[in-house]
Amino acid sequence: MIKPRTPPGVMELLPRDQIAFQRMLDTIRQTFERFGFLPVETPVFELSEVLLTKTGGETERQVYFVQSTGALEKPAEGRPDMALRFDLTVPLARYVAEHEHALAFPFRRYQMQRVYRGERAQRGRFREFYQCDIDIIGKDGLSIRHDAEIPAVINTVFERLAIGEFTIWLNHRKLLRGWFEGQGIADGDQQVAVLRELDKLDKRGEDAVRATLAGEGFGLPIQAVDALMAFAAIRSDGHDDAIAKLDALGAGTPLFEEGRDELKQVLAQLRALGVPQSRYAINLSIARGLDYYTGIVYETMLDAHPQIGSICSGGRYDNLAGHYSKSRLPGVGISIGLTRLFWQLREAGLVATADSSVHVLVALMDDASLADALGLSQLLREAGLNVETQLEARKLGRQLQYADRAGIRFVVIRGEDERARGVVAVKDLRHGEQLELAESELAAVLLARCHGGAAPVGH
Amino acid sequence: MIKPRTPPGVMELLPRDQIAFQRMLDTIRQTFERFGFLPVETPVFELSEVLLTKTGGETERQVYFVQSTGALEKPAEGRPDMALRFDLTVPLARYVAEHEHALAFPFRRYQMQRVYRGERAQRGRFREFYQCDIDIIGKDGLSIRHDAEIPAVINTVFERLAIGEFTIWLNHRKLLRGWFEGQGIADGDQQVAVLRELDKLDKRGEDAVRATLAGEGFGLPIQAVDALMAFAAIRSDGHDDAIAKLDALGAGTPLFEEGRDELKQVLAQLRALGVPQSRYAINLSIARGLDYYTGIVYETMLDAHPQIGSICSGGRYDNLAGHYSKSRLPGVGISIGLTRLFWQLREAGLVATADSSVHVLVALMDDASLADALGLSQLLREAGLNVETQLEARKLGRQLQYADRAGIRFVVIRGEDERARGVVAVKDLRHGEQLELAESELAAVLLARCHGGAAPVGH
Repeated sequence: MIKPRTPPGVMELLPRDQIAFQRMLDTIRQTFERFGFLPVETPVFELSEVLLTKTGGETERQVYFVQSTGALEKPAEGRPDMALRFDLTVPLARYVAEHEHALAFPFRRYQMQRVYRGERAQRGRFREFYQCDIDIIGKDGLSIRHDAEIPAVINTVFERLAIGEFTIWLNHRKLLRGWFEGQGIADGDQQVAVLRELDKLDKRGEDAVRATLAGEGFGLPIQAVDALMAFAAIRSDGHDDAIAKLDALGAGTPLFEEGRDELKQVLAQLRALGVPQSRYAINLSIARGLDYYTGIVYETMLDAHPQIGSICSGGRYDNLAGHYSKSRLPGVGISIGLTRLFWQLREAGLVATADSSVHVLVALMDDASLADALGLSQLLREAGLNVETQLEARKLGRQLQYADRAGIRFVVIRGEDERARGVVAVKDLRHGEQLELAESELAAVLLARCHGGAAPVGH
Repeated sequence: MIKPRTPPGVMELLPRDQIAFQRMLDTIRQTFERFGFLPVETPVFELSEVLLTKTGGETERQVYFVQSTGALEKPAEGRPDMALRFDLTVPLARYVAEHEHALAFPFRRYQMQRVYRGERAQRGRFREFYQCDIDIIGKDGLSIRHDAEIPAVINTVFERLAIGEFTIWLNHRKLLRGWFEGQGIADGDQQVAVLRELDKLDKRGEDAVRATLAGEGFGLPIQAVDALMAFAAIRSDGHDDAIAKLDALGAGTPLFEEGRDELKQVLAQLRALGVPQSRYAINLSIARGLDYYTGIVYETMLDAHPQIGSICSGGRYDNLAGHYSKSRLPGVGISIGLTRLFWQLREAGLVATADSSVHVLVALMDDASLADALGLSQLLREAGLNVETQLEARKLGRQLQYADRAGIRFVVIRGEDERARGVVAVKDLRHGEQLELAESELAAVLLARCHGGAAPVGH
């Protein structure tokens, strides 16, 4: 006998939780489609040669390699031919470069698949997790207007996920770099290093970051550190305040002005798109650690749960696929790490136990009623309800108990008595109510109750 | 520069095909949920020790093993710790055994994920492919009524996929084995071997199978071979004919009678469930090669495309998880290999190019209209339409051409002229029609047209 168990570092859910997770996936996908993004799926494995061109040491150390049994029998020199994707960005770069001539640009794609990282086993760290990404890829150029649409997508996603109020933080790498230039930090590598430090403000706290910047490695003068800290502390409160705080920064280098101008365009467009002004703000401390962001950067925080960190991040990059294509393919995108987010929400008690995806249990009172119960079930299914038929007759109490535990809202009963009176009995377990309905009105009443409640019919 | 390419043996789709594929996945999932199946997802990799208990040589030779970089650096003795799932049945067994005490039985689950097999590279053979499975798992026992529900699910799935008329073939391993006993083929191993031969009838043809059965290995007398062939040739045409042909088989061993009785129960229940009688039939040649089927077996054929083979198969098995649990967990289930099916349908010209998932392109006539176009887009999105906004002003002809090539049905235009007259212009590219509508009626008219046509809104 083998002990049944999953490998460490994966999240496997019981059905009720899987239903809640699936509803989040559905909401995200539906929102991505609302904004005109097209679906892409890529294979879970890529050729190692293709996947691992771009990445440095750290990523490669976390990669999972894949080998068929045949390859194990005659071990080749060096690393195996294939590896599991560790994000959706490298596969997107490969996809766009491979299919460049078949795609229309700007290319708007969404991709929601699992990715794999050999993380150290640790609570809340996953080796397999969902990423839900959107990206807009231009050819040669891409208007800032696309960058401005992204926060509107983020707003709709989290509004519809209904996990609490949130703020989309905006910043711009050119604003940051231009401002650093103004402070005499002109060297590109040093700018990136300072950005990395600023990115740690939330984790390490102001004092620690201040000490690092003034200390040996950086050696910045105290006035520069003070100025940096004051700059990084800037956050806006409302639309007009965001504009005012950007204006109050005074004149800067051309790079700085370019960043400020783009941020202001994004703010204006968010207003035109009807995004509530409580949902977006500038936050000049966010930088996104990754070096490939070159313009707007986004982070999203749950207002009541800052400890969860950013739940949706991304930004603008200059060239998606330099390793695979001679074309310049600038892009802008975001990623939601849904597995980790779901886990964190559950830890914080923010995931309610989901109603079952099954709306109705059709009870079976005796074996002679089987055909009747089956016919009734089909009638409800054809109307659009998800129905389980009780196939083995049991006491009604046990059938009700089963439905209640499983989160099935309605139990439909047509026993001898109901048949004699030409009615169907319905128990609404959510409201502890019992109804008697004609068969002809049954489906419509149940559908109306479903649509009025928290369990939408269909997706 | 690295040549961007996928590993051999995977199916990667361009967005239009991905949309068509995604619609098939959605239809299958929605149908599984209609019948009260609950979602399960399992990790792509399992511990090798857990995954490879049950399987013999052939499966193991096709397994992909997974290793982190760390493991590669210190190669361990023997096979790597983890491997990719090669089907959804072994993960289901592991899942049910692992979570046995948290699940309600009969446990009805669906699972739609990719599986991995190191197949020889060959046209139409995939190393990564979707399986869409449902299973119902009982504890200690499971009524035949569950087996009878499965073909109703198959019927609804393929009716809604609308890929042509189809027939669900039914047979029963006990009917077969009981009948063999009656023919003097009493040895279990020999029965399985004969079953395997019968399963090859379609591929090898009657003469070849006949020669094998009469030849050295089997050495069956000619009369027995004749009887086997006559038996295996039995197919019904319509509900009553199925009953009649089962009755005409005469009396048999207790095993035979058990199989016949169960088949007849299934037929009766399919009628009660309203499955059209043209869609199901008995076919006493089907056996499903796998030895673990012990009762009802199913295959599904497209009537106009028999060369495609079975598009949905499965059956009843005695014990799902004997390697992981002491409980007896009988089950019944089916599997649709969607990647291969999609490929075959496309090869046969049966996959129409899908309309885009984007319903509407909101045109942009000049930069001054941007805020107006964004507002109009949001209005349509909130009504439930999938909308792309043209963000960079271009000639209208180019915008229309883009929408047409992308399969976007509606282009919505509000230029200076339309604004002056208080209307919105709509081009319905499917019908080559142009409308003028008030903003207040725009969303409702577009939604009604979508619902009336082939491009449903939402899922």
